Amino acid sequence: MSLQKVSSNKTFGGELIKYKFKSEVLGGLDANFNLFLPPSAQKGKVPILTYLSGLTCTEDNAAQKGSFLGPAAQEGIAILFPDTSPRGAGIEGESDSWDFGLAAGFYVDATNPKWSKHYNMLSHVTVELPSVLTAADLPIDFTRQSIFGHSMGGHGALTLYLSSLHQGVKQYRSVSAFAPISNPINCPWGQKAFGGYLKDGIEEAKEKYDATELIKRAKFPVNILVDYGTGDNFYIQGQLLPENFLKAARDNGYDEVQVRVRSQEGYDHSYYFISTFGADHIHFHANFLKA
Amino acid sequence: MSLQKVSSNKTFGGELIKYKFKSEVLGGLDANFNLFLPPSAQKGKVPILTYLSGLTCTEDNAAQKGSFLGPAAQEGIAILFPDTSPRGAGIEGESDSWDFGLAAGFYVDATNPKWSKHYNMLSHVTVELPSVLTAADLPIDFTRQSIFGHSMGGHGALTLYLSSLHQGVKQYRSVSAFAPISNPINCPWGQKAFGGYLKDGIEEAKEKYDATELIKRAKFPVNILVDYGTGDNFYIQGQLLPENFLKAARDNGYDEVQVRVRSQEGYDHSYYFISTFGADHIHFHANFLKA
Repeated sequence: MSLQKVSSNKTFGGELIKYKFKSEVLGGLDANFNLFLPPSAQKGKVPILTYLSGLTCTEDNAAQKGSFLGPAAQEGIAILFPDTSPRGAGIEGESDSWDFGLAAGFYVDATNPKWSKHYNMLSHVTVELPSVLTAADLPIDFTRQSIFGHSMGGHGALTLYLSSLHQGVKQYRSVSAFAPISNPINCPWGQKAFGGYLKDGIEEAKEKYDATELIKRAKFPVNILVDYGTGDNFYIQGQLLPENFLKAARDNGYDEVQVRVRSQEGYDHSYYFISTFGADHIHFHANFLKA
Repeated sequence: MSLQKVSSNKTFGGELIKYKFKSEVLGGLDANFNLFLPPSAQKGKVPILTYLSGLTCTEDNAAQKGSFLGPAAQEGIAILFPDTSPRGAGIEGESDSWDFGLAAGFYVDATNPKWSKHYNMLSHVTVELPSVLTAADLPIDFTRQSIFGHSMGGHGALTLYLSSLHQGVKQYRSVSAFAPISNPINCPWGQKAFGGYLKDGIEEAKEKYDATELIKRAKFPVNILVDYGTGDNFYIQGQLLPENFLKAARDNGYDEVQVRVRSQEGYDHSYYFISTFGADHIHFHANFLKA
């Protein structure tokens, strides 16, 4: 699992480094990720924020377009940008659609035997990456982690955060999401993904991989920020369903301090939307990561 | 020359709009550009900053990766992102290399008959785009213009600024550049481009298209900011030559207030470098655009 440095770019006084390594949980395939280290990482360990990207993305898109690095440099926070699926598994049908398979791992551990050797992005993000970064002796304090993401990655961030809390593990101090797929068992993207990756499909997803279901049953304090745009076509088409998540949270007694869902007038699904609120999200997490 | 809106994204409270139109100076081809309008453009006319991109780019790269839009929204400045060459001319050899022809127009008006019908990015940027935007009645005050750019676009920004002043025209109030090709008649990129586009090659370029030559003969006040990185491979290979530009400016009596050239330790040629200093450049131009 030793890390190989692919490239490095100085940026905002810190460094954006691309690494690759042989990923065991992804079935022995090479996995890439980007890591932003703020200038303060030269002096000591820094907290880390994991960013999960959406459909069709790699580890690069948000590093380049998210407008996160400047604010993270200021706040002294590292950002980890994983890829969105295994690459090179060669599973039949893997590249047939843009919303399933390649670049569409949905941050689950697959249980359908066809996919379960490789498609384990949940363990890749929550267990394997922290472990390889720790082994590489990078200046990161893994007792201070938070997570955020966009669209499919917003789904990933919310579910990884909530399901770890359900298991009594405080892996992440806070979560935020841009235009997350908030109730995937009730939208076409989620139904297709879970139907493919999971042996028991929607039933299995309802237990583990649906943010709305997870917040319904939650009995712990949370720190959640969600932004979505009213001009987002995927929102309009019913792929995101943030209202379902918000209603479930309110019905379960969470107030605006613990679960804040903001409707942003006229914004769409693009990085032009994400970058607008990027600094906001970094500062939100800084409250918890630096507490 | 009427404008057609291709797309529009709300961002930082303003709007990033992609337009296309039939460009006369590019020989009747469709030309695309992006225009960022800050929130304050809803209330009245705003000043405009033109950004010229580098080799291989389109009108999109810097809009997405430059980190310019947030600061421009704050300052109330519009940004115009032209393309980097005509598209679809179909000239023999046009797509043979990445540093000449397509996406490599070098912001000249070609005089070699092979290229002169289409490759007129100088007139496209300085005359045609302001004219079509004015005709479209967009909320832009063209008495307040500045210009900036990266690499080939840094060359473009410096030469368009300086040559207009040499002609006694104050089209732009200030200029800035990231890693500009600063003395193109003395580097391989410039020699190849000018040898192709210009009937009299380097001789013609020396008169009109070389920032170092233009600052040598300048007899007027200027507002110039240049940043380059010491880890930039193109700088190391001698494609940029910012020292030649700086020496010519100092020899001609320009001090650090009028011509500021900053060497940035360890930064490279990428958008990770540009975005780091993007806000700086916007605020530099705001001093003059809002004076």
